Amino acid sequence: RSFSTAARQTLKIGLIPADGIGKEVIPAARAAIIALGSDIPKPEFIDLVAGWECFTRTGVALPEDTVQILKDECDCALFGSVSSPSRKVVGYSSPIVALRKKLDLYANIRPVVSVAPEAGQKPSVDLIVVRENTECLYVKEETLTSGANGKEARATRLITEHASRRIGQMAFELANSRPRKHLTIIHKSNVLSITDGLFRETVRAVPSLPGIDGKYDGVTIAEQLVDSAVYRLFREPEIFDVMVAPNLYGDILSDAAAALVGSLGLIPSINAGDNFVMGEPVHGSAPDIEGKGIANPLASIRSAALMLRHLGYTKGADRLDIAVDQVIREAKFLTPDLKGTSTTSEVLEAVLRKL
Amino acid sequence: RSFSTAARQTLKIGLIPADGIGKEVIPAARAAIIALGSDIPKPEFIDLVAGWECFTRTGVALPEDTVQILKDECDCALFGSVSSPSRKVVGYSSPIVALRKKLDLYANIRPVVSVAPEAGQKPSVDLIVVRENTECLYVKEETLTSGANGKEARATRLITEHASRRIGQMAFELANSRPRKHLTIIHKSNVLSITDGLFRETVRAVPSLPGIDGKYDGVTIAEQLVDSAVYRLFREPEIFDVMVAPNLYGDILSDAAAALVGSLGLIPSINAGDNFVMGEPVHGSAPDIEGKGIANPLASIRSAALMLRHLGYTKGADRLDIAVDQVIREAKFLTPDLKGTSTTSEVLEAVLRKL
Ligand SMILES: CC(C)[C@H](C(=O)O)[C@@H](O)C(=O)O
Ligand SMILES: CC(C)[C@H](C(=O)O)[C@@H](O)C(=O)O
Repeated sequence: RSFSTAARQTLKIGLIPADGIGKEVIPAARAAIIALGSDIPKPEFIDLVAGWECFTRTGVALPEDTVQILKDECDCALFGSVSSPSRKVVGYSSPIVALRKKLDLYANIRPVVSVAPEAGQKPSVDLIVVRENTECLYVKEETLTSGANGKEARATRLITEHASRRIGQMAFELANSRPRKHLTIIHKSNVLSITDGLFRETVRAVPSLPGIDGKYDGVTIAEQLVDSAVYRLFREPEIFDVMVAPNLYGDILSDAAAALVGSLGLIPSINAGDNFVMGEPVHGSAPDIEGKGIANPLASIRSAALMLRHLGYTKGADRLDIAVDQVIREAKFLTPDLKGTSTTSEVLEAVLRKL
Repeated sequence: RSFSTAARQTLKIGLIPADGIGKEVIPAARAAIIALGSDIPKPEFIDLVAGWECFTRTGVALPEDTVQILKDECDCALFGSVSSPSRKVVGYSSPIVALRKKLDLYANIRPVVSVAPEAGQKPSVDLIVVRENTECLYVKEETLTSGANGKEARATRLITEHASRRIGQMAFELANSRPRKHLTIIHKSNVLSITDGLFRETVRAVPSLPGIDGKYDGVTIAEQLVDSAVYRLFREPEIFDVMVAPNLYGDILSDAAAALVGSLGLIPSINAGDNFVMGEPVHGSAPDIEGKGIANPLASIRSAALMLRHLGYTKGADRLDIAVDQVIREAKFLTPDLKGTSTTSEVLEAVLRKL
């Protein structure tokens, strides 16, 4: 199986709606992909399971089968969202965190762009959060002991040169491809001088790596402490272009950025590795609106676009993005998170009509 | 030395301006305290050093003397802000993080309140971040090793039952004293089930502790994952009253909340323990405006108010807060962070005139 688009006759897409509104928005993304017709290879969908519901039914949150089929048969995948139990449940562990690691999807790329009032105008927010996706506190190495004063819990935060370098390369590559070519490194090295110090220095060193040969000379580099980054994101979002961050900071920053453009229901992401890409809306399983048919499908449709773009299907990706932008700009068919009154399928229909 | 206000003839206040604009705003807070006259015991100020500048001069960021004088002679203190080197410097470690630990100032209390257009009207943002101040990643236990793939850095995140319980108690006490009596526990236990699980469960268990006897029955409890909390803070700040969080989340959340009310230059905090309290503006050393005389002194004056309130000097604290609110509402004398053109001393003079 090759990652190049050249020879593909069909595009095999794993679908893992998982829990909550994931089950409502992933089918919408599926329909939008089908509507692209011959702009992409003929899509074939493979339905896969994972999630909290899967765990309560089968005792396993991420079946081995799901991972194997993704690895062996799929060209790419779309993941919905997972519910999580409110307390520690023995044997349960977040399947999305596990999938990112098992497929070595080391980059979580989250573009946050406000739709301009008119097509062609400059959006007020136009940034990409490039989040390291395999380590930091997400290694989930935790221990619980009993000390003189009661229980003590410890978690390990891992930052490696290897992972920092490859996420740094991805971030420089992205920054270099954008008009502003500006990269902000997010860290907290005033407290975490060794872990965040390593992240910061490794990313900074990317332009001097062998083989880069001045390729990133046009990229300007800035830094922000994570607390200050969240503050400035709200006060002056226009200072950011590409932001690169360790896992947890990236998680928080992308939600913060989502608030700027109106709704988490608009923000797509891809989990990308060297051999696989998985689209995933940034919103969660939204238990409060689950099953009501009013979940916003736009983040998932945009995630499909991002996935297709990553695979090289620019035309299909552009068509999806343009259709979504038009629907948002017209503001006739919007779900309640965007102060509209439409259902998931009405919004999907509106997108399909624009395609 | 006792922590009760009863018998005090004088109030001994340690002043640690430290670096950057700390040196401009702490003197302003000092002047405001002096202006309170007989509403507080006669203040006596003790000038103390710490910080990056102190380190570059003496090789020590937090002199033993500073700690000892705070412990032995001071009733309370005001801390300015510290600059930090952009790279790891051998022997340097943040003096504010060290002070919080050495004086066991386990609670960092950060009220964020928007000034209502008219006195008496309800502010749109009125919340308090109660941040655990001694552990989490701030234990600064970091290691660096060399693996097959290059350097690997690890940090320990420590969450104890003991520290979670006392910060929980502080948060419930605060929530119970406020009209809305609403407490939101911030965590990320969907990923960190053991460490954040312990934090969450320990805080939740506070109302059932022996001796509480139904005292907190009126407090409603909610929870938010930290990423979602930042998102909702921007979208619906009115849902929050008191938020309690582990150290790093609290750091990020308080900066996020500051963005909501216009400027970090307005946000005060106290670092409080059972035996000592230290006021500290939430803003940093702001190297970009250092020495220009335009730093906003209001966060420091409010920090002084918060410190006095914590010590029981309600009348003095109220006078400072009311004066600051009036100056903001009138909007005649404001520093550039609030889109004004006044200097630090003009804003201070405006506050002093209102006292
Ligand atoms: C569900 C959760 C484990 C996940 C994360 O923290 O990565 C989510 O918040 C996200 O941003 O994709
Ligand atoms: C200066 C830094 C160590 C500090 C912190 O992270 O606690 C600051 O950001 C704060 O919020 O007081």
